[in-house]
Amino acid sequence: MSRLDSFIRRLEAQRACLGSGAALVCDLDGPVLELGLGNGRTYDHLRELCPGREIYVCERHVAAHPDCVPPAQFLLLGDMRDTLRTARKELEGRVVLAHFDPATGDIAASRALARELAPLILPLLCPGAVLVSEPALVAIGLALPLPAGVAVGRYNLYQRVNRQSPP
Amino acid sequence: MSRLDSFIRRLEAQRACLGSGAALVCDLDGPVLELGLGNGRTYDHLRELCPGREIYVCERHVAAHPDCVPPAQFLLLGDMRDTLRTARKELEGRVVLAHFDPATGDIAASRALARELAPLILPLLCPGAVLVSEPALVAIGLALPLPAGVAVGRYNLYQRVNRQSPP
Repeated sequence: MSRLDSFIRRLEAQRACLGSGAALVCDLDGPVLELGLGNGRTYDHLRELCPGREIYVCERHVAAHPDCVPPAQFLLLGDMRDTLRTARKELEGRVVLAHFDPATGDIAASRALARELAPLILPLLCPGAVLVSEPALVAIGLALPLPAGVAVGRYNLYQRVNRQSPP
Repeated sequence: MSRLDSFIRRLEAQRACLGSGAALVCDLDGPVLELGLGNGRTYDHLRELCPGREIYVCERHVAAHPDCVPPAQFLLLGDMRDTLRTARKELEGRVVLAHFDPATGDIAASRALARELAPLILPLLCPGAVLVSEPALVAIGLALPLPAGVAVGRYNLYQRVNRQSPP
């Protein structure tokens, strides 16, 4: 498979997983969290998938297409290690759908960042929330089945399960 | 349509047009010309589509994935306005398949560059050669029908027609 084929499959997997995630949380109230804006393509897609939802976006430096820059009040500007901690006051237990795709092209770096950020993302999710992630994450919740056509490992869907007190 | 949808359609159109172009020239002898290397994705795809063909690649500064850097003898390094002129000695009337996609995101700039480069690309093509181009080009040859699923204007296929002497 060429790098062009592989890139197209990755984007198709991303789109399919975002679609599944949005459908799974359609009955939950709460905002969406986009972990990284980049050129704004997936933010734009999330806006279409989740009309009317607040979409918070983490980004270090905004360099997106001007049409895809979130309103200032939803932009968490800075290093995600800091902004996710700060956002806890406002977003703890409220986020229904989060998307994480560092898209660095460096698998080891993506996984390392995912390990570092997972404990900061998890507290923001409400029970039943879905995290759509390119890197695999451990101990983040229940791994959900992937949409048809998405190969295992290409993209990942996790659901935050209800915390239950011990019997 | 979101920017993610639009980007995926663009890449799918690119892939379909490259496939059509390669199929149309399969009986012609001669090299392929990739006008811009970028990250090397389409170069990699052309290698798969055209095994055994020489693939010449124009690029100002190589910044592709290390797996996708052409051998030095096929790399035309520098501004295409210069390198296409220099390449005429070696490639005039020999290229069977060329691909042009500046992917700047700036439609006006792409079209202006296309207008400037078309007279430099045309003499390199052999009769029957196919040019796969994202920007539309005028007076470059016969516009060919697009592959199924590719919307008119999204990508373009041109064939150099045989020059005939006047009757």
